[in-house]
Amino acid sequence: MNITEIFQPINSDLLRVEECLRSSANVDIPLVAELLNYVTQSGGKRLRPALTLFCGKTCNYDLDALIPMAAATEILHTATLVHDDIIDHAELRRGKPAVYRKCGESTALLLGDYMFAKAGHLAAATGSLRVVSIFARTLMTISGGELGQIGIDYNLDQALDRYYRWIDAKTASLFTMATECGSVLSGCSEDIILVLQDYGHNLGMAFQVVDDILDFVGDKATLGKPVGSDLSEGTVTLPSIMYVLAHRDDALIKSIVKDKKRDRSTVQKAVKKIKDSGVIEDCFKIANDYCSRACRDLDKIRNPSVRDSLHNLAEYVTRRNK
Amino acid sequence: MNITEIFQPINSDLLRVEECLRSSANVDIPLVAELLNYVTQSGGKRLRPALTLFCGKTCNYDLDALIPMAAATEILHTATLVHDDIIDHAELRRGKPAVYRKCGESTALLLGDYMFAKAGHLAAATGSLRVVSIFARTLMTISGGELGQIGIDYNLDQALDRYYRWIDAKTASLFTMATECGSVLSGCSEDIILVLQDYGHNLGMAFQVVDDILDFVGDKATLGKPVGSDLSEGTVTLPSIMYVLAHRDDALIKSIVKDKKRDRSTVQKAVKKIKDSGVIEDCFKIANDYCSRACRDLDKIRNPSVRDSLHNLAEYVTRRNK
Repeated sequence: MNITEIFQPINSDLLRVEECLRSSANVDIPLVAELLNYVTQSGGKRLRPALTLFCGKTCNYDLDALIPMAAATEILHTATLVHDDIIDHAELRRGKPAVYRKCGESTALLLGDYMFAKAGHLAAATGSLRVVSIFARTLMTISGGELGQIGIDYNLDQALDRYYRWIDAKTASLFTMATECGSVLSGCSEDIILVLQDYGHNLGMAFQVVDDILDFVGDKATLGKPVGSDLSEGTVTLPSIMYVLAHRDDALIKSIVKDKKRDRSTVQKAVKKIKDSGVIEDCFKIANDYCSRACRDLDKIRNPSVRDSLHNLAEYVTRRNK
Repeated sequence: MNITEIFQPINSDLLRVEECLRSSANVDIPLVAELLNYVTQSGGKRLRPALTLFCGKTCNYDLDALIPMAAATEILHTATLVHDDIIDHAELRRGKPAVYRKCGESTALLLGDYMFAKAGHLAAATGSLRVVSIFARTLMTISGGELGQIGIDYNLDQALDRYYRWIDAKTASLFTMATECGSVLSGCSEDIILVLQDYGHNLGMAFQVVDDILDFVGDKATLGKPVGSDLSEGTVTLPSIMYVLAHRDDALIKSIVKDKKRDRSTVQKAVKKIKDSGVIEDCFKIANDYCSRACRDLDKIRNPSVRDSLHNLAEYVTRRNK
């Protein structure tokens, strides 16, 4: 099933989320309105809002609370990207110039702050203090996770462990927030909330692993950014780690990461080596394992339509090409 | 009365706020813990937490909610300074190097994000959704206000109006949050909440006007930053505006702001001209007017000790030298 088919049961509600995102950009400061439109209308998949809506259907479907929460999830996600792109000096995001390249770093920094606040305001509009706490804790996890990466040396023995902790903080935490808040707002029992939290966590881990695979095997036009972007920024992700662990004598990756030899030809050489080595298949296996773990307890969910949608999403995550 | 005397009725509770701030810095990421300590333990006056506590005494004094809120107020304030200093390229903050000069811009950006989240988490710990909403709205006002300043031309006719809107967003909104949340958590009636909101707004306006005056007439060692810092960053505040409005033919300020002639000698010349012109007295008059407005409805507050403390604070704000 493609994403359009998977989203079909929540299509009209996702339109209400879009409306909420558009009205969030309706600010009386022209520059802010323009930039908010730029970042919220640039073709995100809306996977996180969809997760909130699907999980929100598990028990009572309270759309008045779920719509602002789904929008909050997307705005929080986008705000972290706005700040990340400043830090990583990224050029492109979803095929368009990163916000800070359009408006400058100071403006992008403030825009991100504004978006955190807007997302927090929407989380409060759900009427659930628990949801607000989860929201704040998630932003602490995301920024704390990035801070934990700073100043860390190139160390092969800890690389895998650190990678998993890092993608947990930067990606899986937001997926967990999306599913946890959806289920809380649906009035689920604590054991079902745990099941959906666990689903969100594992789906998020799989999603990020696939993202990192696509940076090697994806198509530039489809991805909206050049292949090998991570390595050219000195970022070591799962495929590089798996490759180096299997080829400890090969100094190419180390020269890129530690010695900052990041010219196009060196990076392309590394990308080719990694693609040819067979580690991509190993990475896909890891992503598929996460997806299996995501689905392991889904039969505890009584609502068959929710169960099916979550299974379909887990299947989609490893098959996607962008 | 000095600030120590004014704070006397809430001394033991302010210690609990300090404890809450210290435990907020107790994070298992060493870099984050160190930086959080650096920014939260660098000699802030704790005026905003004190406002929350004083207003929290108006009706029921619910310390379990007020302590996290007071800490949230201080952390939010400090987080905005961490981001502001990146944007303004400020060298010093409270006599010590600005955080980003200590740890780099990327780390400071993420630290600010983490602090926003931590403050939001503490606001949620009050158990009041209204307080969380006020918190989020305030961060929107602060970042939106700064964004509204970007790309604005040097325009004398709109300068005063813009200045007041700007200090309202960047300073008075936080004072308003401190008093409003204190009174909400104290269970005050809506008319008393309005009185205290109004007090916070006007006190914050007075506070910022005095801050901007001190940048001209203060003492470098006491301020913890050089005199004339605002002008040397190209920032036009009330004294400069009042001076230019009274001396429309004098092109010195314009050359600093618009033509970016910001060498030390030009800035010092402008500072001297402004100090000698008599506008500083006019600015103090404006600050005093705000303080009078802050206090105009305080007799509606039944608790005499709260009333006295708020009067004392309003009197202190225009007399302070740092």
